[in-house]
This record gives sequence, C-alpha cells and structure tokens, in this order.
Amino acid sequence: MKNTLNSISIVLVRPRVPENIGSAVRVACNFGISSIILVHDNMPERERMAKTATHNTSHLLDAMPRFTTIEEALQDFQIVVGTTARRGRKRFAERNPRQVAQWIQPRLEKNRIAVLFGPEDSGLTNEDLKYCQMVSAIPTDNFSSLNLAQAVAIHCYELHHEIIYAPAALPPVPKLASSHELESMYRYLEKALYKIDFLDKEGQPRWMANIRNFLSRMELEARDANLIRGICKKFIQTKERT
Amino acid sequence: MKNTLNSISIVLVRPRVPENIGSAVRVACNFGISSIILVHDNMPERERMAKTATHNTSHLLDAMPRFTTIEEALQDFQIVVGTTARRGRKRFAERNPRQVAQWIQPRLEKNRIAVLFGPEDSGLTNEDLKYCQMVSAIPTDNFSSLNLAQAVAIHCYELHHEIIYAPAALPPVPKLASSHELESMYRYLEKALYKIDFLDKEGQPRWMANIRNFLSRMELEARDANLIRGICKKFIQTKERT
Repeated sequence: MKNTLNSISIVLVRPRVPENIGSAVRVACNFGISSIILVHDNMPERERMAKTATHNTSHLLDAMPRFTTIEEALQDFQIVVGTTARRGRKRFAERNPRQVAQWIQPRLEKNRIAVLFGPEDSGLTNEDLKYCQMVSAIPTDNFSSLNLAQAVAIHCYELHHEIIYAPAALPPVPKLASSHELESMYRYLEKALYKIDFLDKEGQPRWMANIRNFLSRMELEARDANLIRGICKKFIQTKERT
Repeated sequence: MKNTLNSISIVLVRPRVPENIGSAVRVACNFGISSIILVHDNMPERERMAKTATHNTSHLLDAMPRFTTIEEALQDFQIVVGTTARRGRKRFAERNPRQVAQWIQPRLEKNRIAVLFGPEDSGLTNEDLKYCQMVSAIPTDNFSSLNLAQAVAIHCYELHHEIIYAPAALPPVPKLASSHELESMYRYLEKALYKIDFLDKEGQPRWMANIRNFLSRMELEARDANLIRGICKKFIQTKERT
C-alpha cells in the first residue's frame, strides 16, 4: 500500500525562531510526515535548528527545500490548507484539525497536500491565505494561541490518526489542479475581469478574494483550470484587437 | 454548567528540564486545563520555567503544588491515567489519547482526574504506573517518542475536544474511591495475602500488580474499598490472635 502520509508537506512560512523549526521537524517525523518546506529569505542558523531536532531528524534540516515566496513553494501542490489562530474576520469557513484531516483523507491518494503555518507572532497574512482552499484553527480556551511546534504537532497527530486508523469511507478525489495551474488561471481571470470593468483598482483585492474563495471550493482539475484560463486569454486577445 | 475541565489535573513526575514545565503549563492552559501538579524533590528554577510559559500563565508557576511522592500527589484523585511511549511489556492495555478522553468524559462530573507524565528520558516507571487505572500511548511512526510538552499538548487537545464538543452519550459514572482510599485498601489486602502465604517475598510485586490491575478495572467506590479493607483488617487481627 502506498504510504499516503508521503503526500503531505508541512510548509513553515517565515518562522522567526530557528529552534521552532527543529521542533516542528522532529514532531512531524514523529507522526510519519518527513517533508518540511521553508519559505524564508535566508536559511536559518543550522545549529539553532538542530538543537531541538533529534539526531534521527537532523539530516532533514540539510535537505529542507527553501523558497523565498509562498507561490514558488506551493506550485506543485493541489491542496493547500492554511492554519490560523485568528478568529473574527473570516474570509474562509474555518474547520478544526480533525475536520481538516477527514477532508484531506480521500484527497490524499491522487494529490499533494501542503499545510501552511505562519510566523510565531503574527500568523499567516490574508495574502498568504489566498492560496489556501481551507483554513484550520485549533479550538483553544479563550482563543489563546499555541506555540508553532505544538500547532504542527496537533495537525500532524490528527492527520496520522485519520490516515492510519480511519477507513477510507469515500472514493478518492481525482487529481486536482496544482497551485501553479490555478495561479496561472487566476492571473488571466483577473486581467479579463479588469478589461470588462468588473474589477477596478479600488475593489480589486476584495472581489478577487471572493472569486478565489468561490473557485477554490469547486475543486477544479487541471483541464478545468486550463479551460477557464483559455477562455479568459481568448477574451483578452479579442478585447485588445477591438 | 459546571466546567468539567476543572476536574482534570496534569501531573508532571520528576521532569528534568524546567523549560518543559513552562511549556506544559502554557499548553495545558491553552486547552482550558489550569491545574498542574509537580512531583519533584525540589522546586525547579523559576526563571527557566517562566522562559517558556506565557505572561498569562506565569502566576500558575508560583501556585503550582509540589509533592515529593506520587502517592501524596494523587491522594485526592479518583481516576489516574498514566502516559507512556513504551510499547512491548504491557502490564495495562494501552489506549490512545482519543479513547482515553472518551473514557474520561462520563467520569468527569463526579471525579477528579489526574493525567501523569513521566521524566523526558525514561518515562513513568512500573512503580509509577501501579497507581493508574489506564495507560495512554500516542500512536507515532516507528514508536518514536514525543517531547514532554507535546505529549501534554496532544492529551489536553483531545480532552478539550471531547469534553467541549462531544455530547455526553453515557450517564455519569458515580464518584469512585480516591487514590488515598485505594492505597489504604491495598496495604491491608497485601498484608492479608501475605498472612495466608498467597504472597511471598519473591513473587509479591508481580502478584500485587496483577491484583491491582484486576481491582482497578472494577471501578470501586469508597464504600467498596472500605469494605474490602475492613475484611482484610479483621482477618489479620484474627490471624494474629491465633
């Protein structure tokens, strides 16, 4: 049987404390998730990361892929889940880690999944969250926020639990469009909507967020994304000729 | 509604690293569990504990009860759960944190629950585990072991989740005998079994462990424990007269 935990990556977005990276790598491995990706301008100090990783996991620190932007880091992923401690302004319906793990389960076989964790102090920004199809929040007392490695621990624990123990109740979800394919589609879509004055400079970010939110719920396959992109491209060309 | 999370205490048995105590206090509070008890010969350095606790939780460090033995720490608890990473020699049937949280749920209303965590390197000893009615093990990849605060995090997360979200499906379990009442019963029982040569010096620890294991599954109430203790006491007196 394919070990579907291999389809999951933990993506640490601009973590500030190198020791937290080591702890996160260690605990993800405890739960059988050994792909950790870093989004960071520089490689954090290896010695400080290694302090909290175990001997068994320190080789992962050397092999850890690093990207400077989220967009690059995510391009080969079909499913992107953001994590947040913030309540209130909900652009997405938040679910808890157990619901997220249950949702991921039937999508694992044919898709690569990224679970994003933001910086310790501020969390993921709205700009970061626009790549996500779902947002996970750990329910806590008085909405207090967890330490980064502990948030990673609880998500990995739930994924491990759900994937190893839960019977696959639903048929597998087909391979979906990758983040790269979606972003390419969104670029043309945005341009097309701008051409017809549906978008203007002022309202653009909010409307595009609503459109992304709507389309991300559709679970587009690559051919769907290419179709939408193709129509938008053709429309733009036609508009430019007139 | 009574906040039943108040019936739960986290008991840290001889933790070696003060920073781990701070992290454990912080994460337990994140999940609404604010009673942390220490079993330790000395009070660990406050400054090192405070480093990993948050400002909101540092007052708990000052108020943290400390005992030098597990027996004293547990005397007012009716339900004691041990945690372990060890597989193999199972004296108890191990369950996972979710099963343990589900088992605890109907017992919370009328009982006080202690969840025990052992030292970082070696975990709880068999001597420590003899006070426990149940042992919880977090399922991990290759049985790798978690950091102390992360093990606390996952147990508190499951307890919080089960107690806040799960409907109470079963009628509440009545108030059970406290650890103090049970230990007093076991002392007389052991003496009585010794008198009739059921126990001898050599086989004693193993047989007593089996007896404790059997009786802890019975969920004795205080009157049951007192009854057994009374019979044993009377028997010993009779034996001593002859």
